[in-house]
Amino acid sequence: MSEIFPKVIVNFKTYKESFGSSAHNIAKAAEMVSEQSGVLIGIAPGYMEIHPLSKHFSLPVYAQHVDGVTPGAHTGHILAEAVRAAGAFGTLINHSERRLTLADVAGAVDAAKKAHLQTVVCTNNIMTSAAAAAFSPDFVAIEPPELIGTGVSVATADPAIISNSVNAVKDINSRVRVLAGAGISTGECVKKAIELGADGVLLASGVVKAKNPEEVLSDLVSKI
Amino acid sequence: MSEIFPKVIVNFKTYKESFGSSAHNIAKAAEMVSEQSGVLIGIAPGYMEIHPLSKHFSLPVYAQHVDGVTPGAHTGHILAEAVRAAGAFGTLINHSERRLTLADVAGAVDAAKKAHLQTVVCTNNIMTSAAAAAFSPDFVAIEPPELIGTGVSVATADPAIISNSVNAVKDINSRVRVLAGAGISTGECVKKAIELGADGVLLASGVVKAKNPEEVLSDLVSKI
Amino acid sequence: MSEIFPKVIVNFKTYKESFGSSAHNIAKAAEMVSEQSGVLIGIAPGYMEIHPLSKHFSLPVYAQHVDGVTPGAHTGHILAEAVRAAGAFGTLINHSERRLTLADVAGAVDAAKKAHLQTVVCTNNIMTSAAAAAFSPDFVAIEPPELIGTGVSVATADPAIISNSVNAVKDINSRVRVLAGAGISTGECVKKAIELGADGVLLASGVVKAKNPEEVLSDLVSKI
Amino acid sequence: MSEIFPKVIVNFKTYKESFGSSAHNIAKAAEMVSEQSGVLIGIAPGYMEIHPLSKHFSLPVYAQHVDGVTPGAHTGHILAEAVRAAGAFGTLINHSERRLTLADVAGAVDAAKKAHLQTVVCTNNIMTSAAAAAFSPDFVAIEPPELIGTGVSVATADPAIISNSVNAVKDINSRVRVLAGAGISTGECVKKAIELGADGVLLASGVVKAKNPEEVLSDLVSKI
Repeated sequence: MSEIFPKVIVNFKTYKESFGSSAHNIAKAAEMVSEQSGVLIGIAPGYMEIHPLSKHFSLPVYAQHVDGVTPGAHTGHILAEAVRAAGAFGTLINHSERRLTLADVAGAVDAAKKAHLQTVVCTNNIMTSAAAAAFSPDFVAIEPPELIGTGVSVATADPAIISNSVNAVKDINSRVRVLAGAGISTGECVKKAIELGADGVLLASGVVKAKNPEEVLSDLVSKI
Repeated sequence: MSEIFPKVIVNFKTYKESFGSSAHNIAKAAEMVSEQSGVLIGIAPGYMEIHPLSKHFSLPVYAQHVDGVTPGAHTGHILAEAVRAAGAFGTLINHSERRLTLADVAGAVDAAKKAHLQTVVCTNNIMTSAAAAAFSPDFVAIEPPELIGTGVSVATADPAIISNSVNAVKDINSRVRVLAGAGISTGECVKKAIELGADGVLLASGVVKAKNPEEVLSDLVSKI
Repeated sequence: MSEIFPKVIVNFKTYKESFGSSAHNIAKAAEMVSEQSGVLIGIAPGYMEIHPLSKHFSLPVYAQHVDGVTPGAHTGHILAEAVRAAGAFGTLINHSERRLTLADVAGAVDAAKKAHLQTVVCTNNIMTSAAAAAFSPDFVAIEPPELIGTGVSVATADPAIISNSVNAVKDINSRVRVLAGAGISTGECVKKAIELGADGVLLASGVVKAKNPEEVLSDLVSKI
Repeated sequence: MSEIFPKVIVNFKTYKESFGSSAHNIAKAAEMVSEQSGVLIGIAPGYMEIHPLSKHFSLPVYAQHVDGVTPGAHTGHILAEAVRAAGAFGTLINHSERRLTLADVAGAVDAAKKAHLQTVVCTNNIMTSAAAAAFSPDFVAIEPPELIGTGVSVATADPAIISNSVNAVKDINSRVRVLAGAGISTGECVKKAIELGADGVLLASGVVKAKNPEEVLSDLVSKI
């Protein structure tokens, strides 16, 4: 697993495209662009799509969340072992739309590592990025509130938003990779994010809601 | 859907048996006992097992939880449409291990109904059973704390625990069915629960952790 | 307690006016308007203001929240007995900014009743209003999302939003009073809400953030 | 504030002794023992007791929780400014009975610092202790699940539970002090905790539920 680090992860969220034929089509576009460009793209579809999409496509597939629990008397929870068994390669943890307690972030990272899942912990600022780095996940994905759903691009925003968070992560653990998790919509944004120290990007609607996901993905990886 | 009301629903929780070959074996036992006895048995496995188990077996399959959200920008949530598309027949809502806010219970029931999923709302006492009945779900499953994980059987406990909750539900909406959701381990318990006014039972470890699930299920349905 | 039912409750939220001299001034205005108009006004200030404001003013003082717990090993929780001992007359429960699980709404109502606190359960639609009525609180305060923070007045909105919720509450328990909890800013709004079946109103910023709270309160009670 | 660091903080929780005359008596005992021994003792009573106890006693008084919010439209929340205005010297954050999301722990530490409150962030293991240290609170209070409510003393438990957490904290930020937050009931426990690298202890029922709190507190500080 150690050598597989996507530059782009597409979060399908629970958009109506997150399951069924739409999910299949986005995955297909991601696979094609990934192969053509040589830039590895990961996808995070709905839970029930983990199995079919990981079977049909040569892409790292991520769960959108796992709970920090081990097998036992929990109802409705997401077991790291179960998403792994379904074919997941990794998992998002603590996404801004699925916040966990500090104890549960640690528990989820731990459970995911034990299940051999790559871990992507989402954070919202410098302090939480540093804290997340203390868990030694594979990635910290920074989602600054200033850039979430505001239409503000990481390319035009205050560069310190990303670079300071990257530094905070690397100061705690230099081996943790960083994804820019908001303000990304074009190849220019991806380029800028990487210039600011990010190792890649995490994005969602820009690809998932696109009329032509392949076109958007092609642009996204064009300047890497 | 209106004529399909299982007498027994088995919650696989996130026990290690909730996915993979163990889940398959429990489903197989449920199908056999269901066919032999003529008593309909439903199963609530892990999310990723909804698709394979609903394909392989003639059993109503339930999600363990759905969120009260419509398709959109939610990450890690369980979409009623998505579990329906995966083959689910119904869903548990507000299980004691997955409590929802009052507003989210209503939202989840609403989302599940729109996705044509049968709804089983779990409650903990008379007051919450009455409140849940106001949502007009297909079932209210009563899990009295006095009977959860205590080893106390519904057959030996204070009968008022079940009968008063049944009355509270029926007073609000007489068409809502009631499941006894704790204190059930044998056919005698099932018989007693039904005598007290329940329409069926919801149980978990007694079947899921059994060496021989078929034997346990056979006993459970033996006195109905 | 049975005869004291305010027509207007002012939620101080955690605005900067919710504590200290601002809170004192709003309470003073409420007391003056209450005395002059004969319309009873209640206030829900910050927790730490419950004691001083209930000592200084002849107004029913409400906590903004209580937890559904009895005295014991809980940290940071709001004990019904403790707010009662501090001088509270009642409490809001399940406000849209402080949602509780179904089980905890029931627990909080129960704890508040045992501590002799008047109960005001907040809800967001017809279904949850009906469910809340099953707990037999003193008030259900309906906060329709269509009217929260949208600037839309209850006087101009679809009348069915309020009247259907009032009917749903009364159908379950005719003794439960109803407050209109959103879309209220003027005496005209209060008049309309009462015409639609509400027994009173719950509001916040319109009074708390006003330059002259006394003027706003005088207008609010002017058409009752 | 920088020179005031209690060696013992007593969390009153929401025991029935957390408010009223019992709270007063425990505070009185803490003040007496503090003066006689020269060992500073802090208390964390119920919210409504912050004002009276901080007026009557020369003890640092802590809130049991603050929310990570600034003044605004939040209902039922605990504002750092408000507890400061009531007389609090500091606050617990993220107690095991009041877990916060990673983002909210950071927000609460930030809000507390801006309100000039000393911060005590509670954690449950090495990973979360390290993460909490990244927020640069005044204290991290380690509550290992192995020692919470088990009757196991820190003096007899695996020493690594405390010492490894202390090291993890100091590695991230050497200026953060550490409290042992579980497994403490006697002066011997306190002595052992300090030998293992802790700067003090956080405890609750051992003092609060004691017949003679003064006696227990005297013993607790006797070997420092």
